[in-house]
Amino acid sequence: MAKIVQCVPNFSEGVDKILIEKIIDEIRKVEGTKLLDYSMDKDHNRCVTTFIGTPEAVEEAAFNACKKAAELIDMSKHKGEHPRMGATDVIPLIPITDVTVEECIEMSKRIGKRIGEELGISVFLYEKSASASHRENLASVRKGQYENMNEKMKDNEWKPDYGPDTLNVKAGATAVGARMPLVAFNVNLGTDNLEIANKIAKSVRGRNGGFTACKALGVEIKERNIVQVTMNMVDYISTPLYRVFDMIEREANRYGVNVIGSEIIGLVPMMALINCADYYLKIENFREDQILEKRIYE
Amino acid sequence: MAKIVQCVPNFSEGVDKILIEKIIDEIRKVEGTKLLDYSMDKDHNRCVTTFIGTPEAVEEAAFNACKKAAELIDMSKHKGEHPRMGATDVIPLIPITDVTVEECIEMSKRIGKRIGEELGISVFLYEKSASASHRENLASVRKGQYENMNEKMKDNEWKPDYGPDTLNVKAGATAVGARMPLVAFNVNLGTDNLEIANKIAKSVRGRNGGFTACKALGVEIKERNIVQVTMNMVDYISTPLYRVFDMIEREANRYGVNVIGSEIIGLVPMMALINCADYYLKIENFREDQILEKRIYE
Repeated sequence: MAKIVQCVPNFSEGVDKILIEKIIDEIRKVEGTKLLDYSMDKDHNRCVTTFIGTPEAVEEAAFNACKKAAELIDMSKHKGEHPRMGATDVIPLIPITDVTVEECIEMSKRIGKRIGEELGISVFLYEKSASASHRENLASVRKGQYENMNEKMKDNEWKPDYGPDTLNVKAGATAVGARMPLVAFNVNLGTDNLEIANKIAKSVRGRNGGFTACKALGVEIKERNIVQVTMNMVDYISTPLYRVFDMIEREANRYGVNVIGSEIIGLVPMMALINCADYYLKIENFREDQILEKRIYE
Repeated sequence: MAKIVQCVPNFSEGVDKILIEKIIDEIRKVEGTKLLDYSMDKDHNRCVTTFIGTPEAVEEAAFNACKKAAELIDMSKHKGEHPRMGATDVIPLIPITDVTVEECIEMSKRIGKRIGEELGISVFLYEKSASASHRENLASVRKGQYENMNEKMKDNEWKPDYGPDTLNVKAGATAVGARMPLVAFNVNLGTDNLEIANKIAKSVRGRNGGFTACKALGVEIKERNIVQVTMNMVDYISTPLYRVFDMIEREANRYGVNVIGSEIIGLVPMMALINCADYYLKIENFREDQILEKRIYE
């Protein structure tokens, strides 16, 4: 397969479809990209766009779309429920096929530099690209939102990575960063006892000493009379699905409860599952290029 | 991903590279195909060619290559160690992506019909395409080889599916059929006792009452001082890898032996491994189209 990066830029416009189409045309125009999806939300006044492509094409398309959004969206007039700080609010870069997270970090820096220098927009590198640990979390970067960013950037802790130290009034500020694809993974327990699901969620999630790249909650599935550990796996390489699954099974057994099933919600990268097969079958020296489909698209 | 079929035609020429290149050019010429590999064997006097493509392209390319082979190869002068019956000896069709084995069976019938009618070559459908159970096995179809095919076809049991009942002296006969991709899967045992590997091989293989689509042998891995159950999994859908792996583990435990690892030799279809992840993680209602990579190439 060719090198594939996914990009999920968020634009601060959720009502005007003609305007959004103009931004998205900048993505469509770049050869080597493929638009997978975009959705506009009126209350959030925000558009989430998903596209993929070769690293070069994604880099070009992300910059061009950001440039067009800066022309068309006026943040000084923007209202919406979702936290936001810029016309192009955030540009996440996600390694999909034959691309490392390091390559996506380099891409984010090049895109950020161009946005800063050519468009005069303040840029914060976040997540895997962050220049300091307090800038990894997008919510922390965006805290104060558009209205308070000018003030916030006066603090040395929040000096932008690229672009001016004073806010671009029309376009606001933009976060750019590499992150791993997110896998929504739920494990169902053979009990209706929510307390058990909550205890297990607490034991596996990073926040409470569990697996770093696992966010977990206990929830009730009322129609089935069971409970579930519902998870966001934010880095399936450093925290693999099988490791969390096995740990949940062990913790559940401690309460005399069985794991009765699991769910993958939405999309999952092929390797997040192949890695599980590799683990359970104890395959020695498996190489990704042994996957037939990889030969087809190389 | 687009519909992808793999085709592995075998031609009865293993020395003359210029001749083989002319046959393979017929495959390259058809848009929508991709040649993955071809290898010539002098002693076998045979060329094994692997290509993939859309069903329509593969159908066209397979016929055109067979036509060219019939022009260039004279079976009445052919000598070689490998059993063979025709200039194009066999055309296996293998479903890879978003194609069912039933679709490959239909393809094999259309290709066979054209070879019979347009080229005047006797065609036997084999494997999943076979018109009777005694004609499934390629070795049985080919038994007697080129030299005895004319006589063999007089028997009603061996009347060809398409083409003339008397052998085409120059081109011989051709087998065409759909089969599943083969997965070479070995399981390593923590013992040097070959008898245990042989007993386990016998218990899991179809020939002795085990899994229908599993061929297995016990072998010694001398450099590691262990034994191995070495397998050809000939239909990973009806006989999944995880089921055989789990059974080997149970049988090994009976002898107080652990499974210490496994190996996949060569290529493996993505779904053969994804199905294992699905099983061990007990995923409910998993759909192939949840795999991110499938969206990229659809």
